[in-house]
Parts: sequence; structure tokens; C-alpha cells
Amino acid sequence: MLKAIQILGSSSGFLSYRFRKPQPNSGLSLISISKSIGTTSIKTDSLLLPASHYKGCFRMSSTHSQSNADGPSSSQLSSSSVAAIQSTGNIRKINFCQFCGGSTKHEIPDGEEKVRAICTLCGKIIYENPKMVVGCLIEHDKKILMCRRKIQPSYGLWTLPAGYMEIGESAAEGAIRETLEEANAEVEVQSPFAQLDIPLIGQTYMIFLAKLKTPHFSPGPESSECRLYELDDIPFDSLAFSSMLVTLKLYIEDIKVGRPKFHYGIINKRPGTSPSEIHAYTLDYHMQS
Amino acid sequence: MLKAIQILGSSSGFLSYRFRKPQPNSGLSLISISKSIGTTSIKTDSLLLPASHYKGCFRMSSTHSQSNADGPSSSQLSSSSVAAIQSTGNIRKINFCQFCGGSTKHEIPDGEEKVRAICTLCGKIIYENPKMVVGCLIEHDKKILMCRRKIQPSYGLWTLPAGYMEIGESAAEGAIRETLEEANAEVEVQSPFAQLDIPLIGQTYMIFLAKLKTPHFSPGPESSECRLYELDDIPFDSLAFSSMLVTLKLYIEDIKVGRPKFHYGIINKRPGTSPSEIHAYTLDYHMQS
Repeated sequence: MLKAIQILGSSSGFLSYRFRKPQPNSGLSLISISKSIGTTSIKTDSLLLPASHYKGCFRMSSTHSQSNADGPSSSQLSSSSVAAIQSTGNIRKINFCQFCGGSTKHEIPDGEEKVRAICTLCGKIIYENPKMVVGCLIEHDKKILMCRRKIQPSYGLWTLPAGYMEIGESAAEGAIRETLEEANAEVEVQSPFAQLDIPLIGQTYMIFLAKLKTPHFSPGPESSECRLYELDDIPFDSLAFSSMLVTLKLYIEDIKVGRPKFHYGIINKRPGTSPSEIHAYTLDYHMQS
Repeated sequence: MLKAIQILGSSSGFLSYRFRKPQPNSGLSLISISKSIGTTSIKTDSLLLPASHYKGCFRMSSTHSQSNADGPSSSQLSSSSVAAIQSTGNIRKINFCQFCGGSTKHEIPDGEEKVRAICTLCGKIIYENPKMVVGCLIEHDKKILMCRRKIQPSYGLWTLPAGYMEIGESAAEGAIRETLEEANAEVEVQSPFAQLDIPLIGQTYMIFLAKLKTPHFSPGPESSECRLYELDDIPFDSLAFSSMLVTLKLYIEDIKVGRPKFHYGIINKRPGTSPSEIHAYTLDYHMQS
């Protein structure tokens, strides 16, 4: 069934975020956002739609403008994000073949429609594809396990444990691994919960519902704090990423009306907004199973 | 809810493929396979678990051995598959930086756990991540639209329209684009149906249920034939890929017991079997929503 959440924006002033009553037949709410837009633009070196230094307040007026740019990090999460963003329409930045070192030309290969980087020495075509970020929404005693980031981007802000899926592992295995790395928590995945594509930065989030195997967790090297949050206390004013905002809102809506479903959606950043404005997006093509 | 399909193998002789009665509380069947295993091995240059020249017969005894190796193709589907496979544990084949042309060293970066290729000139860390293959399961008049491949791998065998997700598009948009390219069919996606990870080849399939916008389709450049198949007539003896076998079987099972659900699973190739043996796998970690 095709269901849609529309997040409506305006550039006229204040941020307001409210859930309307669930729509008939959908079990979902219409989320409406309006957010002040300054002279900010989307920086191609910004990562994961982060909200570093974000001081705006959820459900409150806010007129803050562009956040500080998010610097690179030594973690794969951020480094690969840089790569993903650089590759978004930036195939022309690929100047050399990874395998033979030959220089590349940039043209449309026979039988294709897009410009690719092609090695002039060995003839290999270099493709750039979106990357998968895998993570867990961990339910424990009606609370959700969250991590406070000790790395950039979005240093100091809250997220669900997640990171890039590695070659040789599955999405579920990657989500379990990331949870162990970021929260020292051993979990069992219960069901797929959300797939959220972010075409702007070439990322797809895959979030699984999970349970703690034992009630133990503590901050890993990339977290300063790990904490179980009641649903009413989730720090929506200091979340790290749009993807986590959408995930948590969908989860809360599902819990209100029954049990969690599986959600698919596309997070499109509203044009002219900064990556730090994590509330300034539309969730398009929202479907659930 | 965690549900499991076990596909049990033996090396003692014949291929048999049968559905047992649905298990209580699961709505799923236990699939049992036994398949003759010769001296074949998994070739790292084989693509997408293909079944080129596969002559084994579904539901029949079969003792065929290794298929011909699948050669490279000029299409992105196959070329990127090669890249994905090459990158599975083959980070050491990355000898140069794509951006500055510097030579790479291979070691574990600070704060990480895996060996990566690191540029000795600009310091960039090169990450290799799994790729997403997106496609459509198109329902029309209780039939399914399938395409016969006119390219390698799996030339002449049947598949659902699918291909690699591109930077800048969502999974749903990619699935619609691939369907247009391979079957000249305009479709509307209805719901996400399956996410199937294949860790061995660094791929994740995302299949959407879709409807034809108009009842028109014809073979695109990569297809020799496009056809609507009744569920009972699906050519299970000449399918191109394990991923499509799993997708179609899950769909048929869902239809038998009600409506399609969303499925997540990991397709693990049984050790010692050839990529052409598309029935020789286990579907692990099967979960549905």
C-alpha cells in the first residue's frame, strides 16, 4: 500500500513540528514542518545530514542559521560519507584507475547513458554506487538505546547505533557489529524496521528492531554516553541525523497505533537548507508493509 | 518476528526441491534441497550467482556439474558485479588512489579493525562497500512480468527486471528505471517486498512489488524476450539468479496464505557449489514484517 508522509516547508520563519491525528486507513500521521532558511546552502563536504552544534529546539521557534561545517573524521562512518558525497555527481573527480594506476577519461560507455570514469590504460569502467548504513533500534523495557557521538560529524548529538555495512557481511550482521562497537551491547535483531534512502548523499539506511541479549551496555570508542530513553524523553532537539529523526518518529507512531511495521521512504533535503537542519526534509514515497 | 527457512543440502546425489506444508505460526514453508556436488568451486569472477547454461530441472533429478564461467559484460550490472566480487576481501588489489594517483599501502588505519587501502600520497582511506541491486516484481492479471537475458551473465535465462542502484537515485526510482530499461515498461511501485543480502558477492537485492501503468512492455537492449508468467508456469528450471529464485518462491508462498509481506534474508551459497547452481544456497536470518 502506498502511504505518504508529507513534510511541508516554508521559508517564512519558525520551526514547528507537530503530529496531526493519524490519518484514516494509514496508521500514520501527517508531519508538518516549517523552518527558517537563511543564506545557507548544502555543503558537499558535509556528512550524513548532520546537526553538529544544532541548538534549535524541537517544537519551539528557532531562527538559527547555518551550522558549523562538519569536519572529516577518522572513522569509516564519516570517511565513507565523504566518499559517498564526493561521488554524488562527482565522477569527474575520479582521475585514476584503482587497479592499474592509468589515467581516466570521462565519457558515456557504449550501451550506457551516464558519464563514467573509464581507465585509458586497462579499459575498466569505474562505477560509483550508493552505500548502505545499517543500524539497530533497540527496545528494552519500553525504552530505546541511544548513543551520544564522540566523533564528527554531529559530535555531542544523539543517534541510534549505526554505521557502514562492510563487504562480506549482511545488513543484519553489520547492524549487530555496529551496536557492539558503539554501545558495547550484544543484540539480537528481531525484524527489519526501515529502509530510508537519502539520494543527495548516496546513502541508504537500513534499521532493524533489536533486543539486548543482556542488559549491559557502555560507550564504545565513538560514543561519549549510551542511555536508554523513554519514548517521551527522546532528545529530539539534539539528534545527529535526519535519518534517525525519521526512524524514531515512525517508530513512535507505530507504537501508538499498534506494532511496528516495515517502512520504506526517501529522505529529500529541502533545497536551500543546511545539512545541520535535520528537520528540513521531505519524506517521500513512504510505503509500509 | 524471526522466522526461518532452512534449505538443507546433501552431497549425495539428486536435486529435489519441495515445499513442505506451511509451519504453524509462520505462514512459511520449509524448503528442502539436496543437490549433487561435483568438483566445482565458487569462482571469484562469477557474477550474481548466475545460472548460465543451467540445464538442471526444478523438481527433477539432476546431476549436471559446473556451468561455464560467466564472462564479463559491458553492462553496468555485470561490470559492477565484477567490481563487487573483486572487492570481497580483495582490498589488496586496490593499488592506486582514484583521486591523486598515489600508490596505496594496505594496513589497519588508527581506530579501525580491518585492513584498508590507504593512499601514501594524500592519506585517503579507500573503503569498499556492498552494492545494492534494485528491481521490481510486477503483478499484472495474476501474472508476473519476467525478462529473458540477452547479456552475460546468465545469457538466455529468466529474471525479474533489476540492476544496480545509481548514485543520486533512490531504490524505488532505480527499480522503476531498470524496469523501463529492461522491459520498456512503465511501473508504479506498490510496496517493498524483499531485501536479500548476498555477502559472498557483496550485493544486497531490494525488490519492490509494482504494477504496470499501462499494459505495454517489450524487450529492452539487455533482454531477448519479456513475458507475463502465470505463477504455476514460472520457469524455475531456467532462472538466472538465486536472488530471483528466493524472491519468487517467497512471493508464491505469501500469495498462497494471503497477501505479500516484507521479507529480509541472507542468501548464503552452500560451500563447494558452483555459482551456476542457483538452488544450492541457504536462506538464513529470514524475517518478515
